[in-house]
Amino acid sequence: MSASKTVRKVEVLSPVPADIDIANSVEPFHISEIAKDLNLSPKHYDLYGKYKAKVLLSVLDELEGSGDGYYVVVGGITPTPLGEGKSTTTVGLCQALGAFLDKKVVTCLRQPSQGPTFGIKGGAAGGGYSQVIPMDEFNLHLTGDIHAITAANNLLAAAIDTRVFHESTQSDKALLNRLCPPNKEGKRSFSDIMFRRLKKLGISKNKPEELSPQEVKKLARLDIDPASITWRRVMDVNDRFLRKITVGQGPEEKGMVRETGFDISVASEIMAVLALTTSLADMRERLGKMVIGNSKAGDPVTADDLGVGGALTVLMKDAINPTLMQTLEGTPVLVHAGPFANIAHGNSSIVADKIALKLAGPGGFVVTEAGFGSDIGTEKFMNIKCRYSSLTPQCAVIVATIRALKMHGGGPEVVAGKPLDRAYTTENVSLVEAGCVNLARHISNTKAYGVNVVVAVNMFATDSEAELNAVRNAALAAGAYDAVVCTHHAHGGKGAVELGIAVQKACENVTQPLKFLYPLDISIKEKIEAIARSYGANGVEYSEQAEKQIEMYSKQGFSGLPICMAKTQYSFSHNAAEKGAPTGFSLPIRDVRASIGAGFIYPLVGTMSTMPGLPTRPCFYDIDLDTATGKVIGLS
Amino acid sequence: MSASKTVRKVEVLSPVPADIDIANSVEPFHISEIAKDLNLSPKHYDLYGKYKAKVLLSVLDELEGSGDGYYVVVGGITPTPLGEGKSTTTVGLCQALGAFLDKKVVTCLRQPSQGPTFGIKGGAAGGGYSQVIPMDEFNLHLTGDIHAITAANNLLAAAIDTRVFHESTQSDKALLNRLCPPNKEGKRSFSDIMFRRLKKLGISKNKPEELSPQEVKKLARLDIDPASITWRRVMDVNDRFLRKITVGQGPEEKGMVRETGFDISVASEIMAVLALTTSLADMRERLGKMVIGNSKAGDPVTADDLGVGGALTVLMKDAINPTLMQTLEGTPVLVHAGPFANIAHGNSSIVADKIALKLAGPGGFVVTEAGFGSDIGTEKFMNIKCRYSSLTPQCAVIVATIRALKMHGGGPEVVAGKPLDRAYTTENVSLVEAGCVNLARHISNTKAYGVNVVVAVNMFATDSEAELNAVRNAALAAGAYDAVVCTHHAHGGKGAVELGIAVQKACENVTQPLKFLYPLDISIKEKIEAIARSYGANGVEYSEQAEKQIEMYSKQGFSGLPICMAKTQYSFSHNAAEKGAPTGFSLPIRDVRASIGAGFIYPLVGTMSTMPGLPTRPCFYDIDLDTATGKVIGLS
Repeated sequence: MSASKTVRKVEVLSPVPADIDIANSVEPFHISEIAKDLNLSPKHYDLYGKYKAKVLLSVLDELEGSGDGYYVVVGGITPTPLGEGKSTTTVGLCQALGAFLDKKVVTCLRQPSQGPTFGIKGGAAGGGYSQVIPMDEFNLHLTGDIHAITAANNLLAAAIDTRVFHESTQSDKALLNRLCPPNKEGKRSFSDIMFRRLKKLGISKNKPEELSPQEVKKLARLDIDPASITWRRVMDVNDRFLRKITVGQGPEEKGMVRETGFDISVASEIMAVLALTTSLADMRERLGKMVIGNSKAGDPVTADDLGVGGALTVLMKDAINPTLMQTLEGTPVLVHAGPFANIAHGNSSIVADKIALKLAGPGGFVVTEAGFGSDIGTEKFMNIKCRYSSLTPQCAVIVATIRALKMHGGGPEVVAGKPLDRAYTTENVSLVEAGCVNLARHISNTKAYGVNVVVAVNMFATDSEAELNAVRNAALAAGAYDAVVCTHHAHGGKGAVELGIAVQKACENVTQPLKFLYPLDISIKEKIEAIARSYGANGVEYSEQAEKQIEMYSKQGFSGLPICMAKTQYSFSHNAAEKGAPTGFSLPIRDVRASIGAGFIYPLVGTMSTMPGLPTRPCFYDIDLDTATGKVIGLS
Repeated sequence: MSASKTVRKVEVLSPVPADIDIANSVEPFHISEIAKDLNLSPKHYDLYGKYKAKVLLSVLDELEGSGDGYYVVVGGITPTPLGEGKSTTTVGLCQALGAFLDKKVVTCLRQPSQGPTFGIKGGAAGGGYSQVIPMDEFNLHLTGDIHAITAANNLLAAAIDTRVFHESTQSDKALLNRLCPPNKEGKRSFSDIMFRRLKKLGISKNKPEELSPQEVKKLARLDIDPASITWRRVMDVNDRFLRKITVGQGPEEKGMVRETGFDISVASEIMAVLALTTSLADMRERLGKMVIGNSKAGDPVTADDLGVGGALTVLMKDAINPTLMQTLEGTPVLVHAGPFANIAHGNSSIVADKIALKLAGPGGFVVTEAGFGSDIGTEKFMNIKCRYSSLTPQCAVIVATIRALKMHGGGPEVVAGKPLDRAYTTENVSLVEAGCVNLARHISNTKAYGVNVVVAVNMFATDSEAELNAVRNAALAAGAYDAVVCTHHAHGGKGAVELGIAVQKACENVTQPLKFLYPLDISIKEKIEAIARSYGANGVEYSEQAEKQIEMYSKQGFSGLPICMAKTQYSFSHNAAEKGAPTGFSLPIRDVRASIGAGFIYPLVGTMSTMPGLPTRPCFYDIDLDTATGKVIGLS
């Protein structure tokens, strides 16, 4: 057992009880104990109740110069709609490393969205004996980061529509006078944020009265083209009726109606800023330069042009600090940024990973989760996140299940809420073997980045020895460094010890440098095409709208950014029904947006929705509070 | 000086610096010090950072049977748009009682809405040397209560539209089968929350297969009339373009468009539930019985009918715990529930006041703030909040300013953002005397509840001795127990010592029992008319829509509830321009809604908007983060 003081030995039961019952069966350590075990001084964290703490960025200054731990990213094969246990495996691996292999380890997870928690999928704390606890606090408000994103995103949205409205009814002079109100002595002046716009416009005057009429117009009138506005409102709820709406229908808004819509909060550019920023100062700049649309003359309009970049930063100032929690077996977890790697960037944050790497230190491990398959989360992890962080992973774990491989081999459709077909619960080696084409492509795509790939087969009770061997053989044949069967759902960290050993060896034996899939200095289309080829596509089709946007962003000087594709997680292609390893298709790009503050171009592939819906019977039907004990029931 | 260990002596400067600069000039006590001074055991609170803690309801069980402190409510006269310093006076009074008069004292304030903080008004932490600190934490996310309300409100909204959608495309049988999915053994069962609906429908069967086709229809088909839906979405942002919107315009929603809108979050019924609930169990029941509209047959449809009452409670389980903070001079503050007493209930919570009364104990003081004038916050405090809490206030403080009284006496219009007319900054005793009709009506209306009324004149530097005397004389003539001039903005608690002494005497010399303005067992219209008379109205005009709603709610059995009027705060009447003490008008009721979970009928008077807007130059222009120090700048 580990030398760590907070390791908890958990008795495992069979059959495995419900997730919330396992979570509620142990008394978590006070989070200050977990912090102490990481050598975190109390001045570097703020408690949020007994079991959560926000770790302050100041710890990075203190640990500057000390060495990093190994950096492991966990992705998966193309999943079924039931999920293949990627979070569970991430937690199980860390429990193995920390509680059984005596390593310093920090798990970096993303904060769950409340949409799925109350919708179809349930929570995201892992499952069985590999969970983050308290799982209700993990799945609900946590420390308010997503709520802060929602608030900031929607303040900016309100600022946009209101500005268009006020500009429509006021002269240039009246606008300037309102923007620069007189102080008690009757003097008008520019606020600090207006100097940012003045600088951008190349106007070097210091007082409102010095401006020429032309300069007054340029400064005070953003002249936003309503049709160009790409900034949408967000909500952390699965509310399909907000996908497309018309706003401004009240009589006071004088007919200034506009079609727009809501995305789920985790798809907000502000979430991507949070994930990709490296400091408070960097976050301030990124939030200020987010582009919300264009002026009628075609110039990008930013949050700072609207005067709101500072306020957005103030709303996000606590959210930048990752939240410390613990696994069931008492190893530390940093929770930060958000999921939905299909429609967003969907990785944990750079700051959380950086803090974790310092806290783990040389010989220690940081295991960070990337959403969905290597075509989704891992691709973005490498080409966007590692590009901005300059961090280098040594090992990528790919989580596979016999169930998903059978689906890729031609098994019947898997539908959430419906019983599984018999094909999935009885031995069928050839189905598994046929499905390994999917695994093989994930391995080769991931290996191309220069990391060692370890396949983790997340074992179910119905999996047979022959099926598991088939996966192992296929994985090694496809170039995996190792492939290991794990039972951490049923057994906790103990069930992932072999995986932990394989990951350690993989980290210690890296032979190549990190290689990106594409360089930044090629065109937007060339970058999209490089990613499309990695999906198996032989070409890309752009809609008229996509062509128009690419041309505009290129003209505006944004073509040097990396690409964040919004694509279904259920296939390498744009068509969720195409299982296995499809080739020879043409990838349709419906639209292209730009997240200039976060720092990427955002193509929408096919018909991806950015706002999920609720089913007839959402998860919330089972969720309630035991008001006598205060415990949450029915959360999964 | 007080025996309390956390009293802080603050050096006052003249002229008074900016609020944020005063707030940032002192290092707050660690909140555990404030808790200790209140004899709060660490097991009864959870830290949220260094300067905030959530006080757990469990403290009420522990202190059951111990005595209460005096209960003081602070309201104001009819204000100017600039505000008359009601929060400032509340804080100043408590600093006087705690830091200068050696009393145990707890201040109960409402959490500010981020709408005004970034919009026109700025924050609500008080001002000058009478503030809650850290003022940025107070004004921003605090401990997430309003965000929790937003999340819960909007989950319910999504559940409504989605349910209407799914019912439109499914047979009764299909609906039932989806609502009661088979378990692994293929058996279907009712979830706990469905038994609530079964009970309401008078169906005493235990298994889905036992239901008759008629019962299947009754259980599974809520048959919501879309036109009857009163539940709106909310956002804690001043977003006027969301006042009236059309939702459901996406192609997947198949033409099921509907007109609706967003309110500001603090106007959510869930905020009112939070303010009026007394325990977790009570909150669970209130959230479940919130009515969102009717079935086509005219029956009320509740959150529990939609299966979501439990999930709403889970989202609100931490929000029910008030947040402990401190004043500039180190006295304790409990922050809970929300503002906007014009369009909402707008008082601090019953649980916060109850906890505070026990912590203050016999001889101690709890000072709680009610929004705006006695026609707004205090009326609701007495007739709704005290009715549900069974608590009895001894003293009501009415805050007045020379500025506002001059306005009521006929002074020129006061407009936020424009310089004050000279009438307000030079002596004009007759203007003040004329305006005292407003103060007099607030005094007599408040005195009618059986409390002693103390008038606090919040003094400005430009007020003259003769003007102040005029107010004092008018107040005593109108029946005030006392009237005191205070300078707490400039001098902190020291400037409100005389007020503290007056309040203490008023509390010790109560001669009457609490009397409500109206009994509950009269009709909805009679109750509305009783309140209208207290405004000075000689009659009430109901719109057709209001008549229809009153008839329906009466038929549905809701006529026994108290009334929560949504009315402008700028006049006793519905017309903001009618200053002084208007009489002889007829009060127009535009619409009537029902907050059945919170427990009141909600008439909308005149043209009250439930979603504010942003001006051309919102407060956010000045707000930014000093990224070197992490300090917020420009917040007012």
